[in-house]
Amino acid sequence: MLKEMLENVREKCPLIHNITNYVTVNDCANALLACGGSPIMSDDIEEVEEITTICGGLNINIGTLNQRTIPAMLKAGKKANELGHPVILDPVGAGASALRTETAYTLMEEVKLTVIRGNISEIKTLATGSGTTKGVDADVADKVTEENLVQSAEFAKAFAAKTGAVIAITGAIDIVANAEKAYCIYNGRPEMSGITGTGCQLSAITAAYTTANPDTPLEAAAAAVCLMGICGEIAYERMTDLDGNSSYRNYIIDAVCNVDGETLEKRADYKVL
Amino acid sequence: MLKEMLENVREKCPLIHNITNYVTVNDCANALLACGGSPIMSDDIEEVEEITTICGGLNINIGTLNQRTIPAMLKAGKKANELGHPVILDPVGAGASALRTETAYTLMEEVKLTVIRGNISEIKTLATGSGTTKGVDADVADKVTEENLVQSAEFAKAFAAKTGAVIAITGAIDIVANAEKAYCIYNGRPEMSGITGTGCQLSAITAAYTTANPDTPLEAAAAAVCLMGICGEIAYERMTDLDGNSSYRNYIIDAVCNVDGETLEKRADYKVL
Amino acid sequence: MLKEMLENVREKCPLIHNITNYVTVNDCANALLACGGSPIMSDDIEEVEEITTICGGLNINIGTLNQRTIPAMLKAGKKANELGHPVILDPVGAGASALRTETAYTLMEEVKLTVIRGNISEIKTLATGSGTTKGVDADVADKVTEENLVQSAEFAKAFAAKTGAVIAITGAIDIVANAEKAYCIYNGRPEMSGITGTGCQLSAITAAYTTANPDTPLEAAAAAVCLMGICGEIAYERMTDLDGNSSYRNYIIDAVCNVDGETLEKRADYKVL
Repeated sequence: MLKEMLENVREKCPLIHNITNYVTVNDCANALLACGGSPIMSDDIEEVEEITTICGGLNINIGTLNQRTIPAMLKAGKKANELGHPVILDPVGAGASALRTETAYTLMEEVKLTVIRGNISEIKTLATGSGTTKGVDADVADKVTEENLVQSAEFAKAFAAKTGAVIAITGAIDIVANAEKAYCIYNGRPEMSGITGTGCQLSAITAAYTTANPDTPLEAAAAAVCLMGICGEIAYERMTDLDGNSSYRNYIIDAVCNVDGETLEKRADYKVL
Repeated sequence: MLKEMLENVREKCPLIHNITNYVTVNDCANALLACGGSPIMSDDIEEVEEITTICGGLNINIGTLNQRTIPAMLKAGKKANELGHPVILDPVGAGASALRTETAYTLMEEVKLTVIRGNISEIKTLATGSGTTKGVDADVADKVTEENLVQSAEFAKAFAAKTGAVIAITGAIDIVANAEKAYCIYNGRPEMSGITGTGCQLSAITAAYTTANPDTPLEAAAAAVCLMGICGEIAYERMTDLDGNSSYRNYIIDAVCNVDGETLEKRADYKVL
Repeated sequence: MLKEMLENVREKCPLIHNITNYVTVNDCANALLACGGSPIMSDDIEEVEEITTICGGLNINIGTLNQRTIPAMLKAGKKANELGHPVILDPVGAGASALRTETAYTLMEEVKLTVIRGNISEIKTLATGSGTTKGVDADVADKVTEENLVQSAEFAKAFAAKTGAVIAITGAIDIVANAEKAYCIYNGRPEMSGITGTGCQLSAITAAYTTANPDTPLEAAAAAVCLMGICGEIAYERMTDLDGNSSYRNYIIDAVCNVDGETLEKRADYKVL
C-alpha cells in the first residue's frame, strides 16, 4: 500500500499550492520536490484562486500568518473546495495566540479540510471548539505514549468524525486517524524536533500524497507520516560526530529524494487501532 | 571573455538590491556572496529608492509578489533607470496568474530592463504582449531543443529587439540573446530543476555580472548562465548515493564560491547563432 | 563563566520571540535550536503581545522591515519591557535608509534594550543620535583594529552608558561592552562574512543567552559572541576544497549544535578593557 502511494506521487508529480510561513518555506519547497511533487508559493488575495486552480492540492500553514494572508488562506481554501482539491491545514502555534487559534477555527468552519496535521497541543486546541461550538473531549495527555495510546487514538477518531478530516497528530508516536481507523506510527527520531520545519515539510508532503492518492486520504496521510519518519531515521544513520541540526535537515530532505517504495514499505513501523 | 567577466565581479564586488520572493531569498543572498557580489534585500516602498541608490544593480523577482511589494518594484526600477543601473527581471510564474502576468507587463512598460531571465513558458507569456500591444511571434515550442534551436534563437532575438533587453531563456539548452546575437548554452544538469530556486539564484548572479560588466550586458548575462550551468555540473560530480536535492543545492552554491575564471572559460559549452 | 552561560541555555531552553527579516529567518531558527533555545517567529501586530508573553526573550531584527512590521516591533518591545524580558536589537542596515535609521532610533527611544548588536557602521549610525538628541562621540574608525581598540572600546562603553544597553560591535575584533567594561573578542574567521546571516544568527543566540542568564547580560552577550566566533573556527577546520559558503553555513550551525561548555571556555580568546 505505502509503496503504491509513493509511486503515485512520483508518477503524477502533483503541483501543490502553498500558503505558508516564511521561516520554513524553502525547506517545504525542496521537500515537495524531493518527494516527487512540485511547489508553488503564493499568498496574495488577488491571485490565490487562479494559482489554486492550476494546482492539484492546497497546503495552508498558519505560521507567520498576518492580516494580509489570512483572507487569502480562506479564499484559496474555498476555491480548492469548489474544485474538489485536497486541502491540508497545518495549525502552527494554534493555542499560542488568539489570532492563530481563531484563524484555525475559521479555516475549519469555512473550508472543508482533507487533513489537519499538527502536534498534540495544536490539535487539542482545535478540538476544544470555539465560542458556542462544543468541541470533542480533548482531555488527553499532552504527549502520546504507549500508555495513553488507545485513549489518544480515540480522541483523534472523535475529532476526525467531528470535522470529516483525517487527523494527523505527530510526536514520538504519530497518530493518523479518520473516524473509524487510526494508524499509530513509530517511525522517526527525537532529533527531528531539533530542526525547524520538519512538521511544516510533512504537511507539504501530505498535500502531495493526498493529491496523488485522492481516493484514500487516510492511507495517503499515513504514508506521508511514515515517509517523513523513515527519512528522519535514514538521515540519522548518516550523521557524523561533526554534524548537527543543519546537516541533519539537509540529510532528511536528501533521504526524501532518494527513498523508494520498497524501503518505505519495509521500514514502516505502525499498528492500526 | 568569460574569465574576465567573472574576475570583474570578484574585483568590483557589486552590491545588488533584490526585491525577491521569500521562498529562495536566502539562496539568492548566498549565491550573490558566492559569486563575488554582495546582497541587500529590501522591499518597502519607503526605502527602495535609497537602497537602490547605494547599490550598483537591481534584481526584481516577482515570485510571492503582493500588493505591497509591486509598487516598490516599480519605484525601485524607475530609480535604477534614473541612475543608469542594470535592472534584471525574473518573471516567476508569469502566465500562472493575471497578477503575475500584468505585473511583469507593467514592469516591462515602465522600467527599462537590462536582462529578462525566465523559462520558455514565462518568456513566451511576456512576448505575446498585453492589451493593444502586439507582441512578437511567440509561436515557438514549449521546450528549446536542438531541432527548434534556430527558431527559438530567432524568437529570443525578436523579443530582445522589441524590448531592448537581453533575453535569457533557461532550460535544457539556454538561450541568451540580444537583437543580433544569441548564445546557445549547453551547460547544466537536468537535476537542477529538482531544487527550488536555481533560476532565482541565476537572476541574482546575472545582476552581479551585468553590474560589474556594464558595457557588455549580453556577454555578462551569457557568462552568468554558463557559470550556473557549470556549477551545476561540478556540484553533480560531487554527489554521493546518499545525497539528494538539498545537498545538491549546497554543492552548487559552494561551486559558485570556488569556481575560477579558467574553469569557466574551459568548461563553457555554447555556440553563437 | 562562559561554560555556565552555555549550560544555562541548554538547561532552560529559553523560548525566543523573533521579529526578523525573511532572508535569514530559517538560519536564525535553526541556530536558536542548535544553541539550546527554541524559536517562535511572529510579526503581526494582533498577536505579538501574546507571543512575547509566552516567550522568555525578544529578538528584533530590522532587516526587510516594512510598514506592517515596524509597529509590531514597537508593540512587542514594549510588552517585553513590561514583562521584564530581555530585548535584543539588531539594527540591520541602519544608515542605509532613513526608514531603517529612524526605526532603529524609535526602537531605542521607546523600548528599553538589553543588547544592541551590529557592525561598527550600524552602531556608529545609532550612536550619532537623531534630531535634537545629541549622540555620543562616534568619531571612531570604520573598522575595529588592534591600533584603535582602546578608542573603540571607549566608544562602545560611552554608547552603553547612554543607552543602558550592552553594546555588541562585531567584526574582525568584536567588542561587547557595558558602561564599565568591554570584552574585546578575537574569535571568528573572516570567511564568516561570506555567508548571509551570521550576524542575524548571533543576535538570535544572544537573545537566548541573555534570557537564560538574566542577571549578567554583559557576560551572556560576550559568551554568545565567543560562541559564534568559535563555531566559525570549528566549522572552518571542517572545510574541504570543494566546500564554499553554503556548506560553511551548515557547518557553523552544526558546530553551535555540538559545542560544549569546556570547548567554549578553552577556545575563547578575549581581553577585558
